[in-house]
Order: sequence, then C-alpha cells, then structure tokens
Amino acid sequence: MQAQPHVVIVGGGFAGLWATRGLARAPVRITLVDRRNHHLFQPLLYQVATAGMSAPDIAAPLRHILRRQANVEVRLGEVTGIDTDARRVRLADGVALDYDILLLASGATHSYFGHDDWAADAPGLKTLEDALAIRRRVLLAFERAEAAATPAERAAWLEFAVVGGGPTGVELAGTLAEIARHTLRREFRRIDPAQARVRLVEAGPRVLASFPDSLSAKAAAQLQRLGVDVVTGKAVAGIDPHGYTLDAGDGRTERVQARTVLWAAGVAASPLGALLGVERDRAGRVPVADDLSLPGRPEVFVAGDLASVRQPDGRPVPGVAPAAKQMGRHVAAAIRARLAGRTAPAFRYRDFGNLATIGRMAAVVDLRGLKLSGLLAWWFWLVAHVFFLIGFRNRLAVLTNWAWAYWTYQRHARVIFGGSDAQKETARFPGPPP
Amino acid sequence: MQAQPHVVIVGGGFAGLWATRGLARAPVRITLVDRRNHHLFQPLLYQVATAGMSAPDIAAPLRHILRRQANVEVRLGEVTGIDTDARRVRLADGVALDYDILLLASGATHSYFGHDDWAADAPGLKTLEDALAIRRRVLLAFERAEAAATPAERAAWLEFAVVGGGPTGVELAGTLAEIARHTLRREFRRIDPAQARVRLVEAGPRVLASFPDSLSAKAAAQLQRLGVDVVTGKAVAGIDPHGYTLDAGDGRTERVQARTVLWAAGVAASPLGALLGVERDRAGRVPVADDLSLPGRPEVFVAGDLASVRQPDGRPVPGVAPAAKQMGRHVAAAIRARLAGRTAPAFRYRDFGNLATIGRMAAVVDLRGLKLSGLLAWWFWLVAHVFFLIGFRNRLAVLTNWAWAYWTYQRHARVIFGGSDAQKETARFPGPPP
Repeated sequence: MQAQPHVVIVGGGFAGLWATRGLARAPVRITLVDRRNHHLFQPLLYQVATAGMSAPDIAAPLRHILRRQANVEVRLGEVTGIDTDARRVRLADGVALDYDILLLASGATHSYFGHDDWAADAPGLKTLEDALAIRRRVLLAFERAEAAATPAERAAWLEFAVVGGGPTGVELAGTLAEIARHTLRREFRRIDPAQARVRLVEAGPRVLASFPDSLSAKAAAQLQRLGVDVVTGKAVAGIDPHGYTLDAGDGRTERVQARTVLWAAGVAASPLGALLGVERDRAGRVPVADDLSLPGRPEVFVAGDLASVRQPDGRPVPGVAPAAKQMGRHVAAAIRARLAGRTAPAFRYRDFGNLATIGRMAAVVDLRGLKLSGLLAWWFWLVAHVFFLIGFRNRLAVLTNWAWAYWTYQRHARVIFGGSDAQKETARFPGPPP
Repeated sequence: MQAQPHVVIVGGGFAGLWATRGLARAPVRITLVDRRNHHLFQPLLYQVATAGMSAPDIAAPLRHILRRQANVEVRLGEVTGIDTDARRVRLADGVALDYDILLLASGATHSYFGHDDWAADAPGLKTLEDALAIRRRVLLAFERAEAAATPAERAAWLEFAVVGGGPTGVELAGTLAEIARHTLRREFRRIDPAQARVRLVEAGPRVLASFPDSLSAKAAAQLQRLGVDVVTGKAVAGIDPHGYTLDAGDGRTERVQARTVLWAAGVAASPLGALLGVERDRAGRVPVADDLSLPGRPEVFVAGDLASVRQPDGRPVPGVAPAAKQMGRHVAAAIRARLAGRTAPAFRYRDFGNLATIGRMAAVVDLRGLKLSGLLAWWFWLVAHVFFLIGFRNRLAVLTNWAWAYWTYQRHARVIFGGSDAQKETARFPGPPP
C-alpha cells in the first residue's frame, strides 16, 4: 500500500475537489490540504454577504464530502513552503508532506491593484469571513443611518457603492437595492431605507464585459430597474472611511460621501503560486503546459484560478467554477494516464456558456449564441446553481430559503454577529468627517 | 403624540420583547434598546454551538419582529449609564434617552465564580459569538487530534470536559458525545472520533439539580448511554490550556489532560444592574417589589434574569425563558394599569413545568408531578421548542434540519469560520505541555 504514489492536492475548491474525486479509483494515496475545513460554493457567496443565506448553506466539510473515498486523507493546514526538487510541501504546523505528484489549486483572492490601503474601507468577497463582514457592514449602515444625528451623516450611511461591474459586483449591487427597497420596508422609524442609493461603479465602458454587448446593455437596464445607479467609464481614484473619489479620466473628479463601499473589481492568484519559483503572469497566475503540468516539472500540476491557460484561439480560460472543475477532472485523468503508462492528454476547455444573476427575477445568460435575459434567464440561473450545489441537504435548504425569500422578500440571515457588539462597532467606524 | 409617556426598554430578550409586545395597544411610545440587532432563542443556542443549526436559525432581527408595531422604535445601542433621578439612559454613542418609564431587562451572562482567568480556556455559552467560538473549538479539536504527532497529544485533543451539570451542561455533553460517536464516523483516517471521552463534571451530588431526584438519575443514565462520563461531587479547582484539575473535597485532586473544556457552571446577572445604584443579591440580581418595580422607584421596572423575585412560598423564580416572558408580560400589564389609574397587580409566576433535553431521543420532563424521560420526553421537548421559536420561517427550517439530522446523524453547520485560518488557530493553541 505504501508503495502507491502519494498525490498531494493543495486546495479544496472546485479544481482540487474535482481532481480528488477523479482519483477515487486510481492506485494512489491522496492527501488533500486546505486551510479551511470546508469546500465553499463560491457562486453563492454573495447570498451570504447579503443575508439571504447562512454560511453553512453554501459550505460543506471536506471530510464529510470525501468520507467514503478511502484513498483520501483530508488535512487542515496552511502551506508555507514547496520544495520542488525534494518534492516536499511544508505546513505551518511544522509537518512536511513528501509527494510523488503535486496539484496546486489554491485559487485566487481579491486584489486592490496596488491600493492595499483600501482594503479596510472597501472589503472584498472571497471567503465566508469576507461575506459575514460585508453582511455586518451593510446591516449596520442602516442602523447608523437610523441613529444619525445630522442629515449629512444619515445620507452618507445610506450611500452604498460597489466597485467593479463584473458578475460579483452586479450581484451585490442588485441585491443591495432589493434589500433597501423591499426587505427593510416598514422596519425603520426615522429613515426610509428605500431612499438609500446603491451605485455600481465600473471603470470600463460596460458592466459584465465578458458577455456580448447586447446582454451588458440588458443587464444595465435590469439593474436600473431594480434601483441601482450604474456608473460606467469612471475609475475609483481613492477610498477612505468617509467616501470615495471618482475619476472620469478627463481631469474632473467627483467626491462621494459614502460609508459603505464594497470591492468587486480585482482578482489576483493565490500567493502560493510564488512558492513554485517560476515566472508568473501579471495577475500572479502560473503558466502551465497543455496537460496543466508545470513545464519541466511533469509531477507538478496547477489548476483552477491559479493556472494561466490559453484556449486554442488564444483567449484565456476564464476564472469560473466550470473551468476549475474541468481542470480538476483533467488533472485526475492526466495522473491516471501517466500511471497507466500513457501520455497525458491536452486540456481543452469546454465552454457551456456564461450566466450572471442580477437580482430578483433578473439575470443574463449567454449559451454560445442563445442569449436570454430577465425572468427566463433567472430561472435558468437558479436551476443551474441549485443543481450544482454540493450535498443534497444544502440543495433542499437553498431551495426552501429561496422560495420563502421570493414570496416574502425576506432574508432570513439578517443577524449581526462577530464583532456585532455596538460599542466595538462604534469604535471601528470613525466619526463624522472633519 | 409627543405627550404620550416614553417607555424605554433595555434588552430584546424574552422579558424585553414580551413587555414590548404587551404594550402594542397602550398609549405610550416605546424605545427598545439592545446592543444586538436580534432576539435570540437561547434555549437552542447549544445547537449552534454543536453545529446542528446556523446562527440565523435561532435569531431574528428585532426590527423585523416588531415592524408592524407602530409605537416602537428599535435602537441598536449599548447602555453605559442610567440616571434614575433625571430619568435618563445614556448610550455608548453619546445619545441620551429620557424616559417616563424604564424597564431594565438585560439578562444574564456566565460567571466563573471569581476565576475569570478560566474564561480563555473554558468558554461559556450565552451569545451567538460564544456558540460559534465553541463550535470552532470542538471541530478543531478533532482536526488537531488527526494531525497530532504523539499519542499523548492525540489523547488530550480527544478529551472533552463540560463543567456544570445544569440543563446547558447536559445538552452540550450529550450532543458532543453524539458528534463523536455518530456524526464524524468514517471521516478521519488516523483517529477514531468515537474514542473521544466526554466528561460532564458537576460539583453537586447530581445533574439537573432543579429536577426531582428520580429524573436526575434518569438523566445521568441517559447521558451514560449516549457515551458521556458523568462525574458528580467533584469541583473543578483549576483550568489551563492543557487540562483541568478536579477536587473531590477530601484532599485528593485529579489532573486531566484535556484541550477542550466548556463552561456551563455559573450565571451572573448583567452588569447593567449595577447602574441602578441599588443593593443587589449575590448573583448580581436586582430585588424588586411584587409588581416588579424598583422599591421607591415605581417608574423603574426590572424583569427577566436580571430580577430577583421570590414566589409566595419563598423559592426564587427560576432563570428560565417562560419566567422571563411572564415577567415581561406582567410589566406591560402593570404599565397599562398605572396609565389607566389602577394599581399594578402583583407578579405571580406560573410554573408549567421543567424540561431538559439530553441528546438524541433523550430528555426529561417534569410537569408538576407528571414525570417523563427518554423518547416521550424528547418529543415533548421538541414540540414545545419548535412551537415557541419566533417566526414561521425559522420553525420550518428548524424542523427540516432536525428531521434531516435525525435520519442521517449529520449536522449541517459543521463549518469552521471566523478565525478559522489554520495558522491563526495554531497560534491560539499553545504547544504540548512542557
């Protein structure tokens, strides 16, 4: 048994988990390392951030998912070093894992394009902690507005901005508008939450740039109908605790007093890529050979958001969940082929289409030519996401929650905790601008 | 409208919320102040701690609960001062609320009997944050055991202790045993979670001391059947990161290496009671007149766990949810009576019985003479708790979760977050004993 090759897989996201499953019947022993105990269904993370779902609705323990796969050992741990010559991965608790084959699939994080000082005032959305921090901030903003001493202060607490018009930014902005206009109705006595302004700021010329022009336009129209102010062609030039500055590129800047700014603009590959000691691209991704292995290091694979892969037509494979799953499955197939003495095949991305949700009954879908928007697209998106959620219980819970939320406009997870103590929060929020 | 008396209610627990609702049609305006945005169904908090439920399953925003009661304003805020002469409550954010009538119902917290240094090593269970901290600790203990380098270290991570044999301690110990024996089955490769030892330590002669002797004995037997070691007649003399010391009172002490100790032993009234400037009892509770007002201050009421109230036979009214609700309702009735020019009636506690759950199909119920235990008691407990949960959605979700958990032994909220980063957690846990 010990003579079986040892496969170490770093990261229990879509790429790592699908690779692990793809090796269920392979003659290997696997160690899956993640610094979280759970697989996270990231496409629905914005629902946790906007209080529509609980954290456990979209996360399942890796051990539980893999309990019946006897050749896997799940290890909670943080990778701090990779020695590709010695074929060894080092963990923060001092343990070293010797591998015969390594898959690095540690994903991506958000990037502030060199403005890391914006992180405190414009939280991004990648982990459950991020989602709960955003939830807390959004819910507290309405509380602060209700308790505000001056109209200016009140207005600043009712001013929301989402930076970045990609899928995450669009989802967040659309849902924030729904919360303000519908969910909180009748709950406040001094403010009207529907007066809140939700702005979606995109530096490029249109939202959802990865979609065809016509769907971008439809998405913008749907956002506006939900109550979102869509601002395109303006870059954010500064963010501070009291607001942000927009730069139209023509020398004019606009200052907006806003207490809540969310960041959905930039993605950077996981810093673990740097441990491989190879050249990376501008976003920190690791260029790989066509079988997803590291050039010159056939025993090291990179997959998911950390891998830089081009399609035959030269376009990059997008950083979406289906691509990560396909890469994970491909790595498993490549390992199985090699162990059987065959050559690993080349990875080929199968693009089944592109979908983005916007809010209540609003979405856009681009299925290789077939374009949908509005209610039909929303149903398509809903069914696809529930279908792909891991674990039966979660699917059921998610459907129940959604059905309930749909009929009542309510969001069951509107609970502030983790630093929710009013005094602590007061301390975290600065006073009025000087 | 402004001429209506202003009732300030501090605390949105059972007493405060039921008082608020009892004043729905009274000619008053109400400000309900809480430092949390939610009402918490504390009887099920242990389910969040043991990963059976999500935080939002047992918490609902106070604003949402009260959105249709037009005479209430909900205020997120922390009370820092009470001036009973000026009839003014001061909040941490600098705002002062002038009241005509005050209800202080800020509840209780846990107490370490003067050993506050034990708090870091033996967390208690009163808030959602407490529950999530306990959940994290318990789940991480099994992870640490799996990764342990030595048998001694492994054994210490698989040794759990719950201090205090009251209802909370019994629930926690019973559920921990279920997790170890059933929930985690087959998920680990180096440890057998069923080998974990769960000890329930009670200094007094029996568990569930508020129940008749016969039910205490039945509860102990049910605990043992679930896999809990019940230790009575021994007090905890010391707790540190590596374990605890038991003192049998005869000069002999026993040292146990245990990485996870939970505290369910002591309750102390909320520190806000001290702001009233009156004599309090040993547990920090405020003695009140028979209408629950402060002697000499008829416009100030105290209710719930913060109030020290005696029944006609001299026994204290217990610190349980039904008593808090009854007190809240009584204060509302007393206020209505006074406003109508009548004398406020005396509070009379109606004891409908006492129930405690132990674990899967195990509970004890004492209905004024009718004693149940085992499966029947468990069903009784289940129905009562689901019935009393606030909010239809929550009841449905709770029932669904329970039905699912019952059939599968699974606990859907087994997700570690909030300081779940492996490296951070490693830093929080000390190394092996010297």
